[in-house]
Amino acid sequence: MKITLLFLILSTICFSQNTDSILIRNIYNTALSQGKSYEDLRELCKNIGARLSGSAEAEMAVQWSKRKMESYGFDKVYLQEIKVPHWERGTKESGWIKTSKNELIKVNLLALGGSIGTNGLLEAEIIEFKHIDDLKKAKKADIKGKIVFINQPMNEKEIVTFSAYGGCYVIRGNGAIESAKLGAIGVIIRSIGMPIDDHPHTGSMHYEDSVQKIPAAAISTKDAEKLSSELKLSKCKFVLEMDCKDFPDAISYNVIAEITGLDKPNEIITFGGHLDSWDTGEGAHDDGTGVIHCLEALRILKTLNYKPKHTLRVVFFMNEENGNKGGQTYATWSKERGEIQIAAVESDRGGFTPRGFEIDGNEKYLNLLQSFAPIFKTYDLHIFEKGYGGVDIGPLKKSFEGIPLFGFVPDSQRYFDFHHAPSDVFESVNKRELELGCAAIGSFVYLLDKNISF
Amino acid sequence: MKITLLFLILSTICFSQNTDSILIRNIYNTALSQGKSYEDLRELCKNIGARLSGSAEAEMAVQWSKRKMESYGFDKVYLQEIKVPHWERGTKESGWIKTSKNELIKVNLLALGGSIGTNGLLEAEIIEFKHIDDLKKAKKADIKGKIVFINQPMNEKEIVTFSAYGGCYVIRGNGAIESAKLGAIGVIIRSIGMPIDDHPHTGSMHYEDSVQKIPAAAISTKDAEKLSSELKLSKCKFVLEMDCKDFPDAISYNVIAEITGLDKPNEIITFGGHLDSWDTGEGAHDDGTGVIHCLEALRILKTLNYKPKHTLRVVFFMNEENGNKGGQTYATWSKERGEIQIAAVESDRGGFTPRGFEIDGNEKYLNLLQSFAPIFKTYDLHIFEKGYGGVDIGPLKKSFEGIPLFGFVPDSQRYFDFHHAPSDVFESVNKRELELGCAAIGSFVYLLDKNISF
Repeated sequence: MKITLLFLILSTICFSQNTDSILIRNIYNTALSQGKSYEDLRELCKNIGARLSGSAEAEMAVQWSKRKMESYGFDKVYLQEIKVPHWERGTKESGWIKTSKNELIKVNLLALGGSIGTNGLLEAEIIEFKHIDDLKKAKKADIKGKIVFINQPMNEKEIVTFSAYGGCYVIRGNGAIESAKLGAIGVIIRSIGMPIDDHPHTGSMHYEDSVQKIPAAAISTKDAEKLSSELKLSKCKFVLEMDCKDFPDAISYNVIAEITGLDKPNEIITFGGHLDSWDTGEGAHDDGTGVIHCLEALRILKTLNYKPKHTLRVVFFMNEENGNKGGQTYATWSKERGEIQIAAVESDRGGFTPRGFEIDGNEKYLNLLQSFAPIFKTYDLHIFEKGYGGVDIGPLKKSFEGIPLFGFVPDSQRYFDFHHAPSDVFESVNKRELELGCAAIGSFVYLLDKNISF
Repeated sequence: MKITLLFLILSTICFSQNTDSILIRNIYNTALSQGKSYEDLRELCKNIGARLSGSAEAEMAVQWSKRKMESYGFDKVYLQEIKVPHWERGTKESGWIKTSKNELIKVNLLALGGSIGTNGLLEAEIIEFKHIDDLKKAKKADIKGKIVFINQPMNEKEIVTFSAYGGCYVIRGNGAIESAKLGAIGVIIRSIGMPIDDHPHTGSMHYEDSVQKIPAAAISTKDAEKLSSELKLSKCKFVLEMDCKDFPDAISYNVIAEITGLDKPNEIITFGGHLDSWDTGEGAHDDGTGVIHCLEALRILKTLNYKPKHTLRVVFFMNEENGNKGGQTYATWSKERGEIQIAAVESDRGGFTPRGFEIDGNEKYLNLLQSFAPIFKTYDLHIFEKGYGGVDIGPLKKSFEGIPLFGFVPDSQRYFDFHHAPSDVFESVNKRELELGCAAIGSFVYLLDKNISF
């Protein structure tokens, strides 16, 4: 009797593992041989391109996403209205190094997102700091009336490039505040990009109400090296012209698609990326690949006729880059509707070869995550660890206490070649790497749906 | 007493692990922040470029490599003379689809390495096979006097692209033999490349003495799709012109650098890649990155003042692509000198993000390999398994029974975008991915030297 029971249990486990293996193999096969992801990403990047919150392109991207989701026949497709900031780069955006001999050297430059303009030409002596901590220690008398140059490189010794980003992020976010506190009239940062090249990298920056607002821009890493070497020879000035500015908040949308759960339709697994991008390049790796990963994952599960226990919901979040209004609104809205969010997954680290998933959540869910490792070994995924979820799904933690957040982890080496730069275009995405990401996320969401207990 | 002994043993182990950790961290730091690999690869690719055995460029590459090694001040740098085949592509190389309406459609085409020329224009009806097995089953009457078109794609469902390559290799290697056996007068293969694009991929092909030699070429995957769709509409001819041919064998060299072992100078750890490449593109991933990985690994170990127990020997093998004379000569020469080869490592799978190392060897060495896994986890390496070594180090197995061969495993997803194609240029290599490969191999060779017992 005992032996029969054991046999029954064992065969159930084997059968279950076998079912998982077969379905996941089918998910991979579909992504790699009948995938739509690469063409969908091409449409988003090439027919729409960059799509900053509040722009006409962001609105086009919303409409494109909704139509695309509808064409795949999900149970529900809808928009969720949100209010977003609206900042525009304008048409004038140039910078020059002016040497002591009054020679002008034009640099590759992008205003930081949210910066004020210069109201004509801004010209002043430029003073270099190798680290933002050195700037903080500087004397007002040395800075007043000057343009500050923060030439702090990413730490190339970090193995995971996001760690190097974490160490530099503050120069972009707070460079203007720290410089203005000391009387600077503008700030130029070294782009937060890994290679030494000509692409400037933009991104969000902040002002403080009590501190003077000054214009802020990023120059390419190559120009940062150039400026630094000129400053070794003699004092230099910097000439800056930008007519970027803020507009009143705009209406925009998160775009949402669902397959309704069979057993527990009110229990939601949310997975997504962000639809908005910076206004340079085509928002390919940041975060076109993220939204396409999730869309394709849901499409494949539907194609394979998978009937989920819980509601599987893909969200294309709006406004991750400069406000996170999409993520905040979504979390509040879901709570108010009385939904139960049981897990969330985000893809916002590029469309490179998958390495695994990280979890921001408790031990129980870490154990669940690690129980998936053996099945993913076949597909060369190996990172199943504590870590970070994502900006868009972050606000769910406040609305749904204890919810585990999972971050998709692709290889990080090339991400900061493209991040927020003109080089973040469709051509920088490899078809197979993208498809493997779709399959990894589809498989992961399937395993969550089957195995998670709330 | 026992406790003291245990304590002693434990502290020795901890100290040893700590020493390893520190040295390996230094290897990575040096590769990533004071590396020479990217500039060295640029010189090899841009100042010399493609370098097929017997060509003037191959000779330049030999001289460049020797000078470069000498500049790094290793204990010994020398050339090892070998005889290599010498085949040249010539100056005429074109192909056209000729439709039933006599319309000509020009295709992107490369002669396969070793093919005879066409001696003027070769024109005949072309007949398609989706798989080489279908060709083998065909009737002579259906093939005689025609050009065979083998349109067998790489299996995109494979996760590791080398498995897909393994399934297709035979169409390039044996396509001419199988076609000629049935009376064909030429063979066109679909390029063994993963993406659908315009780049033809060349590579080695074979003839058999007893079978008629016929011209063989590869067309781009996009042109293969085009030709196939034209053949669905009506019969087509193919027009081929190539003046490639064989020349008498040439003299060339393996290029070798060593740091002499302190304890056991006659026991050798060989690591290398191949210096020759196909005569299209710049031989960047195949195998410029492989030789640079190993050169940089040795340079870093020297820079860090590491004194190896065994002799560490980097070999830039000549003629991997079309003969493996470098690998064969090296193995024989080493045996005849009375050396003891204790392990060999090859990098010949591209310059992408490292994933780990495979072993072709017995359980004892597999266990050794797997004992390295924990220390490499910090660096995101996770593959430590049975597998394949490499073509160049392969002949060592015959000369040195039981020698473990290790193959460096980088991510495989993009390799067959570039392999043997005009697109295999310096720009297809990412600086950090290359540097991480150098550090992985440097660390691996260090761990081998410290821990291997013969």
